[in-house]
Amino acid sequence: MPNIHYNSWIARYKRPFGAIAKDQAVTFGIAVASQTNPQVELLLRKDGEMSATSYQMTYKEADFYQVTLSLEQAGLYYYYFKIELDENGQRACYFYGADYDGYGGPGRVSAGDNITAYQLTCYQNEVTAPKWYQGGVCYQIFPDRFYNGNPNQEITGKKKNSFIYATLEDTPYYIKDAKGEVVRWDFFGGNLKGIKAKIPYLKELGIRGLYLNPIFLATTNHRYDTNDFMEIDPMLGTSADFKDLLDELHRNGMYLILDGVFNHVGKDSKYFNARKLYYGADQGAAQNENSPYYSWFKFTHYPDEYASWWGVKDLPEVDKANPNYQAYIYGAKDSVISKWTNLGVDGWRLDVADELPEYFIEGIRKNLDGFANEKLLLGEVWEDASNKIAHEARRHYVEGSELDGVMNYPLRKCILDLLINSHQRPIWSVARELMSLRENYPRTFFFNALNNLGTHDTERILTALGNDERKLIAAYGLLFMFPGVPCIYYGDEAGLTGGKDPLNRAFFPWGRENLTIQKLVKKWVHRHNDSEALQKGELIIGGNDNCFIILRYTETKLAFYVLNLSQQTIDLGQESFAFDHDNHNLGETVVKQVATTQLQPFEGYFWQGNRS
Amino acid sequence: MPNIHYNSWIARYKRPFGAIAKDQAVTFGIAVASQTNPQVELLLRKDGEMSATSYQMTYKEADFYQVTLSLEQAGLYYYYFKIELDENGQRACYFYGADYDGYGGPGRVSAGDNITAYQLTCYQNEVTAPKWYQGGVCYQIFPDRFYNGNPNQEITGKKKNSFIYATLEDTPYYIKDAKGEVVRWDFFGGNLKGIKAKIPYLKELGIRGLYLNPIFLATTNHRYDTNDFMEIDPMLGTSADFKDLLDELHRNGMYLILDGVFNHVGKDSKYFNARKLYYGADQGAAQNENSPYYSWFKFTHYPDEYASWWGVKDLPEVDKANPNYQAYIYGAKDSVISKWTNLGVDGWRLDVADELPEYFIEGIRKNLDGFANEKLLLGEVWEDASNKIAHEARRHYVEGSELDGVMNYPLRKCILDLLINSHQRPIWSVARELMSLRENYPRTFFFNALNNLGTHDTERILTALGNDERKLIAAYGLLFMFPGVPCIYYGDEAGLTGGKDPLNRAFFPWGRENLTIQKLVKKWVHRHNDSEALQKGELIIGGNDNCFIILRYTETKLAFYVLNLSQQTIDLGQESFAFDHDNHNLGETVVKQVATTQLQPFEGYFWQGNRS
Repeated sequence: MPNIHYNSWIARYKRPFGAIAKDQAVTFGIAVASQTNPQVELLLRKDGEMSATSYQMTYKEADFYQVTLSLEQAGLYYYYFKIELDENGQRACYFYGADYDGYGGPGRVSAGDNITAYQLTCYQNEVTAPKWYQGGVCYQIFPDRFYNGNPNQEITGKKKNSFIYATLEDTPYYIKDAKGEVVRWDFFGGNLKGIKAKIPYLKELGIRGLYLNPIFLATTNHRYDTNDFMEIDPMLGTSADFKDLLDELHRNGMYLILDGVFNHVGKDSKYFNARKLYYGADQGAAQNENSPYYSWFKFTHYPDEYASWWGVKDLPEVDKANPNYQAYIYGAKDSVISKWTNLGVDGWRLDVADELPEYFIEGIRKNLDGFANEKLLLGEVWEDASNKIAHEARRHYVEGSELDGVMNYPLRKCILDLLINSHQRPIWSVARELMSLRENYPRTFFFNALNNLGTHDTERILTALGNDERKLIAAYGLLFMFPGVPCIYYGDEAGLTGGKDPLNRAFFPWGRENLTIQKLVKKWVHRHNDSEALQKGELIIGGNDNCFIILRYTETKLAFYVLNLSQQTIDLGQESFAFDHDNHNLGETVVKQVATTQLQPFEGYFWQGNRS
Repeated sequence: MPNIHYNSWIARYKRPFGAIAKDQAVTFGIAVASQTNPQVELLLRKDGEMSATSYQMTYKEADFYQVTLSLEQAGLYYYYFKIELDENGQRACYFYGADYDGYGGPGRVSAGDNITAYQLTCYQNEVTAPKWYQGGVCYQIFPDRFYNGNPNQEITGKKKNSFIYATLEDTPYYIKDAKGEVVRWDFFGGNLKGIKAKIPYLKELGIRGLYLNPIFLATTNHRYDTNDFMEIDPMLGTSADFKDLLDELHRNGMYLILDGVFNHVGKDSKYFNARKLYYGADQGAAQNENSPYYSWFKFTHYPDEYASWWGVKDLPEVDKANPNYQAYIYGAKDSVISKWTNLGVDGWRLDVADELPEYFIEGIRKNLDGFANEKLLLGEVWEDASNKIAHEARRHYVEGSELDGVMNYPLRKCILDLLINSHQRPIWSVARELMSLRENYPRTFFFNALNNLGTHDTERILTALGNDERKLIAAYGLLFMFPGVPCIYYGDEAGLTGGKDPLNRAFFPWGRENLTIQKLVKKWVHRHNDSEALQKGELIIGGNDNCFIILRYTETKLAFYVLNLSQQTIDLGQESFAFDHDNHNLGETVVKQVATTQLQPFEGYFWQGNRS
């Protein structure tokens, strides 16, 4: 077998690194150790096509072949190499593609019958992002559970036949009937005034962006069942309270991201109104076949059978192809997006983005592009957004006409894989997955990711880590070292625990905060706010069987974090580290710095400074 | 077959009417139409004995035989008659006992093999009752659901991991897990200050006695799971609030009955403390085998298996034979009964009286008898208390050393039987059951019954009557006409509806009262308060297939109520009525009064005046 080398992370083999723009030249090189009559080809297939294009690679220097090409069409591409040569008097054919995991970096030789192709992302436009967002730190608030800003913690706008927790220390609980369906909704009574009252707290913590779970009129405590897109839920406050909050945030150099839930509405919404509970309305689609909203929904048996989100009948699905609905959400002058963005909202996070047709997301994008101040558009996507398939179709999120970025759930998964011993995943495997995100996403899209250790849809990070504070500290190290915008789920910084929904939605433990964790988080936020390397630096991941290392570097700055993932105290001076990237020589700085450092299990070592 | 007549309701056949005192003479007479050599015996069996005593009846006058006897021992007796005579040249033997339903009144002749005996109650002492109670009207309050007297309706003393209803209009709901067990308790936040604030309302309504469901520290909203008998539940207020309420009631000529729940305690009580939730205590029986409370409970497997009420593990049963527990509840100077009665409580209602040994009830009775002001002791008994068997033993409630009276659930059942067509029970059958209560109870015990149309343990009366307000009006007529102390379940007078627990425990609809019903109830309460006949009058029941008639009379006064139970408008002048009692000639007054009256279906006609 011939000695063949390729590594998508190293410029000698592929440049530029990662995704390319349409019409941008990309050069592939491959090393094939001395052979007879070698013929080397790059085979490149556009996603969805049945055949690959062959690019002849030409001799560049001893044992090295190269080709430069550019692509006229944005999209997802797959590539691998074919090497033909004389061997044992015959013409032998070898293939080189990605490793079995499909991630970038070094790959493997195969006979071609079980090849894994490398991914190449080609984008139409590099996305941008508002200045305030880039390099900032965000904070996610589940509005019912943060703080009640009313005098005497009074709760306003309480909903008939719902429950209020007796104390703010109560453990959240879903009130379900024998069939397992939630029959009464439970509220703690957090509100917009409460968020406003805590702006000084968030400012001191160092937060720049606030992401709020839904705030429009709804039946439930999570408010993903919108009853009226044009109204603030009265339990959260009035429109005036919302404007006050926005203004106070802006006065403090902070920015607001709303949750846009456009795939479905509430069963009790003014649009559907199945139980005639929506006050003052008699024009719900389920009430009246002449309803202006009738065409928004797909009834299979009027009025009680209809398309709904995951079959949850509380959430009738809206037909996004309906022009009237499109106008209502983003097309018309007084659309939902226009109304709230005109009021000063700085960005939107699209709930279940995978359920929205791409033209719908593009419509929202176009609306936002019309504002003088750049607005942010993020999507809820749980996997690698560059190759996501939803409803049997490839999504084009990263190509520049839809989202600015996505919620980074793969990062959370990788961090848990590193820290939870029982996952038994090698460090190098996690490193490859993380690097592949960088590689598959256009650079800005990657840097626009909203990175989290947990959200309203996951276990609390401290609980996920078995209440091990050492691991929690390490998790924050990894979160803040990783490129993108770290986002703290309210209360995580105060030591809140809890399993999956609803336990992950406890009330913020004001007065009972874990001060150790809070101090640590605050230190990282401020470090991030002050660090060019952490905000803008390129990423290198390295390590060995014991340690995981993240490096971030700019032209002049360097930051790194070494984490001991073994069960023993290790003497870093005794370890040797590999950095399978360009600029791996930066690893020498690591070695120099850590020479005399000992790390306890799950202890991390952070350093930043000028590049020497 | 000979012509034999007996009727326990008519003085010619039995006098005095109903129960007799120990050593009191009672005369039985029986009419046996002219026969040859008749020999007539009264056979009387004491409850629990295997043989009857034969009393020879002697010839009194033509075809009439009689015997007078007295009984040395209080208790329950059964009797019937044996008539031997010459017939067709043989000696024939007939028996005469009660009708198949076992109630008093006229009976039937039988051959003796399927005889039903008449009941004769013989009591030790005639009970008494506090003056305020006799002839008064009571009102039952479920304290969490009546009124919140705090400023801004603030709720104090909220319990961790419990729920507060969002609005006072909410429909009560049990929060259960998949196994059907209540896992979180739900509160509206009514309290003692709220009751105090509504004393003017109750006074205007005409109420004299207030019966409160439990108010001591507990986990649940019903508080039948006492956590500390010596503490007022902090959600209801403080001891001072309780004293204030008592004083304010007394200042207004009103009186208080507490709910004494002594069969079991709460799992989380200071006495048991299964989950170590009782604050400040570490001496619960389930925590510590050296606990002073350990001997109160019957553990089958320490600490998690133990005797409990109906197997409900939340309610560990206390061993009432334990002298230490007896002292704690009623025996010691600082016992539970002493503490609260000393504070001014006017009476107790014993929860699940059937579960309490009779010596335990007698112990409480003795404690209360020690107070200068007479105190009331009622029992929760759902059936005819004179012949109740519980735990395979006959209960002696009515005999004068235990209870003053019981909650009258049979009355409620009879009223529903009359008003709900689907019960298809003849009017005369209901009349017999009602009269048998009068007959089986000593007179004062009968007049001490707390009569209800509904309680916290039944459907709301309006719901039970299919929301038919005509029937509701009729039900109140029957309630207020019947001897005993009418007790209104809070909110029934305001038109509250609701099925069984928890729906029967909605919050009082302040500001949304049904004024028609409220006005009607108020009229009846005041009528009752002002009427000698309704408070003290003897009872006669009469009617026919269409009408039910209750008469009440004293030496000088008469009141009656005629109710049309048919589906048609009837012209009372066309009806003839039967009154199978002494003083049935009073029926003539009825006929005279109603001669020109028409009644719609379920319409009633009330009249009172002097006996002519």
